[in-house]
Amino acid sequence: MATTPESGAYLIAPDPSRAGLTREVTGTDQYGQAVTLSVVEERPLTIFLNSREIVTAMTIGDYPKYLALGFLRNQGMLSDADVVTGVDFDEELETVVVRTEHETSHEEKLQKKTRTSGCAVGTVFGDMMEGIEELTLPDTSVKTSDLYALAHQINRTPSLYLEAGAIHGTVLCQGNRPLVYMEDVGRHNAVDKIAGWMFDQDVPADDKLLYTTGRLTSEMVIKTALMGISVLASRSGFTAWGVEIAQQVGLTLIGRMRGQRFVCLAGEHRLIRDVDPATVPQEDKKHRRKSGG
Amino acid sequence: MATTPESGAYLIAPDPSRAGLTREVTGTDQYGQAVTLSVVEERPLTIFLNSREIVTAMTIGDYPKYLALGFLRNQGMLSDADVVTGVDFDEELETVVVRTEHETSHEEKLQKKTRTSGCAVGTVFGDMMEGIEELTLPDTSVKTSDLYALAHQINRTPSLYLEAGAIHGTVLCQGNRPLVYMEDVGRHNAVDKIAGWMFDQDVPADDKLLYTTGRLTSEMVIKTALMGISVLASRSGFTAWGVEIAQQVGLTLIGRMRGQRFVCLAGEHRLIRDVDPATVPQEDKKHRRKSGG
Repeated sequence: MATTPESGAYLIAPDPSRAGLTREVTGTDQYGQAVTLSVVEERPLTIFLNSREIVTAMTIGDYPKYLALGFLRNQGMLSDADVVTGVDFDEELETVVVRTEHETSHEEKLQKKTRTSGCAVGTVFGDMMEGIEELTLPDTSVKTSDLYALAHQINRTPSLYLEAGAIHGTVLCQGNRPLVYMEDVGRHNAVDKIAGWMFDQDVPADDKLLYTTGRLTSEMVIKTALMGISVLASRSGFTAWGVEIAQQVGLTLIGRMRGQRFVCLAGEHRLIRDVDPATVPQEDKKHRRKSGG
Repeated sequence: MATTPESGAYLIAPDPSRAGLTREVTGTDQYGQAVTLSVVEERPLTIFLNSREIVTAMTIGDYPKYLALGFLRNQGMLSDADVVTGVDFDEELETVVVRTEHETSHEEKLQKKTRTSGCAVGTVFGDMMEGIEELTLPDTSVKTSDLYALAHQINRTPSLYLEAGAIHGTVLCQGNRPLVYMEDVGRHNAVDKIAGWMFDQDVPADDKLLYTTGRLTSEMVIKTALMGISVLASRSGFTAWGVEIAQQVGLTLIGRMRGQRFVCLAGEHRLIRDVDPATVPQEDKKHRRKSGG
């Protein structure tokens, strides 16, 4: 895979005009006048791991295979030891089946769990935390000039968000370049699609940074760490547990990025402050994106 | 329960100063200067229905009992036929156990499901859709003057959102009065806490309206309809499926409420347009709340 694309070129960028992602809906405005809005689609996608039904995610529907792979990876249900032999998407049935050469250890665990306590709901979170304690994140440093450059580019990228609102975006970046920009209505689908793409394309994580429009919750921090990425940045705010986990695993956590401003609440040691923030232009109103929540 | 509180008086309002909801965290700003932020807490809460572990929700931690009751209600796991004999919260174990007089039909279903396909993950959504087809929503009308008055009051209510950001709010309203204002980091917890409060206090739904800071997704629309509430309003945008379900069940769906502006994409017939939008003040910048996502 190309890890050094031309400057400014996304490997995958949002394609707001792609058929099936938005729909024209008519209604009325405050004056009772007819209006037509472009609203994002949202459809169920049921993910199977071999013969096991794992979860039904609500998604805009692009990249179902990356979503399934990334979800299973980020939940620790698919490990490096598992050889994926096929990923089959059935549009009509709204299902993706991820097939592996051998039964995964997650399936074994489910079998056991089912026998002992009847069901495996609610274990998802415990499983995620399990993987995180043994993690060592790469020593990648991050220049503040790159952070500003990334925010500037990402905020100006045509997206479903700018087109129709009500959507989350996550962008995989390298240095000052945004590489893969995924969007979704489902809260964590955007980051899962990036994880699935990285897994599928065998993309190294140690020189990458993740940017998200959403808030920096424990789940976002855990997913980022499990992906082996050591820097997570956002326009939005933090939760206390998100900060705590970032500090524990040594992940660099940057939030509230707006124009010149940002706050770093964990992993400060990776930051190289190579630019005077006063020289960075404030966000102009036209390109100011709202918080993703 | 008091359905006619004094004007302007919430029955439950956010209490941003309540201990345990936020934490002071220190970090650095863009100049490398030490900063202290107030960030919201986020902790796991595992919900049990009798002896069944149902789900682990991430929550700010207020109203765990309402959250558990509301979650089970909104997932169709607890019906009107079930008599709740106790709701036990254990702060140390981070669990809530909802106990019913007899085994619920959901537990029976789980038992069966476990026997046939091994696990019940992923059925949650199907179960929610099941309940919705038989619904008939009340004919409650809604005055646009009330909508404007509600948005005005809610936007000025001191909240965790205004204090620390990164949070969703949902408000149960009656006429022009906001009654119960719940907030949470978890996407649907705020609305589930309201559902739990209504169930616990035996509050009628037919004269109520729900206001949310978040986007109008299928799940928000389904939850609102299952609660028996016929009007859902938001500052944020729509998804196509959210609109479609609202149209199917005859729910009034109002989005993008900002100052004078709003859009109604379903259930227009309930709207009484009793005020000229031009006379409504625009949102002033100070009180303008960002979209919840």
